[in-house]
Parts: sequence; structure tokens; C-alpha cells
Amino acid sequence: MRYSLLAGGKRIRPVLALATAEALGQDTDEVMPLAAALELIHTYSLIHDDLPAMDDDELRRGRPTCHVRFGEDVAILAGDGLFAEAMRLVLERQHGDPERVLAALHEIVDAAAVSGMVGGQYMDVAETAADIRHLHELKTGRLIGASVGSVLMLNGLGEPATISYRRFAAELGVLFQIVDDILDVTGDEEALGKPQGSDERHGKRTYVSVFGLDRARELAAESHRKARTALDEAGGHTARLEQITDYILTRQT
Amino acid sequence: MRYSLLAGGKRIRPVLALATAEALGQDTDEVMPLAAALELIHTYSLIHDDLPAMDDDELRRGRPTCHVRFGEDVAILAGDGLFAEAMRLVLERQHGDPERVLAALHEIVDAAAVSGMVGGQYMDVAETAADIRHLHELKTGRLIGASVGSVLMLNGLGEPATISYRRFAAELGVLFQIVDDILDVTGDEEALGKPQGSDERHGKRTYVSVFGLDRARELAAESHRKARTALDEAGGHTARLEQITDYILTRQT
Repeated sequence: MRYSLLAGGKRIRPVLALATAEALGQDTDEVMPLAAALELIHTYSLIHDDLPAMDDDELRRGRPTCHVRFGEDVAILAGDGLFAEAMRLVLERQHGDPERVLAALHEIVDAAAVSGMVGGQYMDVAETAADIRHLHELKTGRLIGASVGSVLMLNGLGEPATISYRRFAAELGVLFQIVDDILDVTGDEEALGKPQGSDERHGKRTYVSVFGLDRARELAAESHRKARTALDEAGGHTARLEQITDYILTRQT
Repeated sequence: MRYSLLAGGKRIRPVLALATAEALGQDTDEVMPLAAALELIHTYSLIHDDLPAMDDDELRRGRPTCHVRFGEDVAILAGDGLFAEAMRLVLERQHGDPERVLAALHEIVDAAAVSGMVGGQYMDVAETAADIRHLHELKTGRLIGASVGSVLMLNGLGEPATISYRRFAAELGVLFQIVDDILDVTGDEEALGKPQGSDERHGKRTYVSVFGLDRARELAAESHRKARTALDEAGGHTARLEQITDYILTRQT
């Protein structure tokens, strides 16, 4: 669990949660358990996705994947354990009105369940997805959305106050995935910490394979614009969220 | 998920939760989401434990195991999904004071995490356990304990009111495991729904392999006695819990 969790990575999800707290005028320290839980869940999904029965990847964040280092049995349990510890972290450490903590946790679990990450990954392995956008929305988009949404819920903010934030989060999830697909083709192997072109080798349908590289870049720019517009409409102290949005478009890893 | 969840089984954990509600004078319908969540988590643990990288079992509850039927990738995801859906079930459906729902969920998650099920299974695969009692306490005992404990928490009952119930639940977990180990040696294959003697083939240390069959039977009788004594001391409408305790001692499957 430590090996995979502390291997680095961009920490996009926890950073998003902290920046959302900042946008709402909340002390970022107050959402730390929630933020960390998001990274634990993300790491759990990477460990399981990398397994031989799934994507069979041997390199992640520049190091041998969990099952290569510790064996498949331990890797399966490390993933299982990280998910449970994420829940435990929120239940034991997250301060706030109990009803709001429940709502925040629900937002996260929903994003990890069949309605989110697990459902998307199933579509991926079973090749049942009619639309890659839907697959990615579940597999990646929901947890990125929940990184914003869970903080909204912790602050007791329902619609319509948060509708722009939610549109922002959804668009950011799309942007993240398009750029991920582009980097898999154009990115620097060493910087990425994983082999380049692995999507193509796995025969995966990506934004690049479906739309071509040029159109994928246009779609990314479009998503970026939409995300920034949603942020403008959201109001609040969104400077950090704007920075993150720009970073996600221009990142090289 | 449905295939494994609806394959039957004894439903010990949900039945325990319902019987605990009854003992406390609570309407059993009110704890149904919690009770169902316990079975989802138990089923998730069976699916992952049966995987080729773990125990490599091909038969469970009289049917091919999940990975034999659907492939390893789908089986890993079915387990992951069941755990997430268990959380979702409680978060969406469990009525009660939010603080108590959080406490009940914490009890369950704790039993599933490294401090419980995952930790016990890790000891099992990594063969790090100094004491099989400790291994089984984590791997099986904690979730059985949480089947009682989570209902106590939902009712807002802390110590010392519940200390006897908790002693009962802990002892029941021990009893359950001893009888499980005995049945693996003496049980009827068809009734068990899995091959007899699988513990021995897997080289597992069990109550029978460590203490011998006769001593294991004595330990079971001792545990049963302790569990019944704790129930007597607990008070409340414990008739059903007494029945379950007797059943766990005398069960043939």
C-alpha cells in the first residue's frame, strides 16, 4: 500500500479537493482526510488496473507495478486495503456535520462504485462501451468530479449554488482524459513513468484512436474553454482551480 | 456480482445483524441495508480469496467460482464493485441519526480494512501469522463481530451497556472459524458446496491441523459455552441469537 501510494504521481484529485475548499473560503486543512482518501482510492484503482488479468502493466510512476514487486496476491489485497482505508480515513478523521460527512462520503463512494470507476473499468475489460466518452466519464471522470463534489457536499452546498462547480468538475474530467490519451501517443516515456503507446498496444479506444491527434487536441482546447467558463460563472476564490485547469491542459506528464 | 451474491450461502452475517436488532427491541426492517451490506462485503471477500493468485478455488456454494465463470478480470471487479455497493447501500438506504449511521459504517469498514479482513487475508497469503487465532480473528472474526457491533452503534449503544454483546460477538467469530475448520475435514462435500479437505491441500494452518480434531471439537464446545454465557449476561430478547449460536456449533455446512 505504501509502495504504490507514495510512488509520487500528480495528486490531481486531492489538490482539486483542497483548491475547491479554498474557492469556497474554507480552510484547506479541514478537508485533508477527504482529499487523502481520494488519492488512496485512485491508487487502489491503478493497482488493480495494472494486474495481469487486467491491463498487465509492469511500470507505473517510473517503478515496477505493485504485483511485479510484491506478487499478484499482495497487489490485489493492497488495492482492497487502500479502498477500505480511504473509507476509514474519512470516517475517523473528517470533521464536519455528520450529515454532511455522510453526503461527502456518498459522493466519493458513488464515484468508485459500479456507477463510476468499477463500472467504467468493467466496460473497458468487457469491451461493452458504445461510446468511449461514457466509459471515461465513469472510469476517470466521476472520481475527478467527486474531488470537487465531495467538498461541496461537506460545505452543505446543494444545487443550484453549485451547478457551475459541478459543470466545471465534469468538464475537467473530460479534459483530463483527452490529454491523457494525447500524452500516451506524444509524451516522454521517462517523464510519464510508464511506457509510451501502451493504449495502442492494448488495443484501447482512446480520444486519439477514435478522433485522431489533431481533433483530440481541438477537443481538449474546447473542454479547457468550457471548464474555465464554468469556473467564471461559479464565483468564489477560484484562482487555484483556474491554475489546475490550465495545468491539466498543458501538462507533459 | 449477482452470480456470486445470489448463489446462496448461510447468510450468517445479515441474520446476526437482524437478530441483534431484535435483541435490542428494534424493528429488524430498520437494519436491512446494514445487514445486506455485510453480505455484500462477505461475498466480495470470497470472490477475491478464490482468485488463482490467492486460494485458487474453483468451486464455491456448489457452483464454479466467479473467475471460473466470468474470467479473472471481471471477478476482481465484481469484488471491488460489491465492496463499493455495500458502502453505497448503507449511505443511501440506512435510516437513523447521521452520527450513528457513521459509527455503524465505521464498525463495518474497520472490520473489512487492514485492521480486519484484508489484514487477515494478507497474513494468510504472506504466511506471517504467529498465531492462527489472531489470523482468523482478523480474517473472519471481525466482520462477524461487526454484524453485531454495527447494530449496537446504530442504536447508539456504547460500552458498558454492550460489553456482553461484544464479548458474545467475538466468541461467536471464534466458534464459527473452529467449526469451519472441522467441517473442512469432516464435512459432506455436496452439502458444503466446495471440495472437502481444501485447507489441507492449500497447506493452511487450521484449528484442526494445529490442535487436532478432538481438541478442536473441545475448543468449539468451549467457545459455544462462552458465547451463550455472554448472551445470558447481555440481557434483551436474545432467543434468536441463542438459536444462531447453537446452529453455528451444530451446522453441517
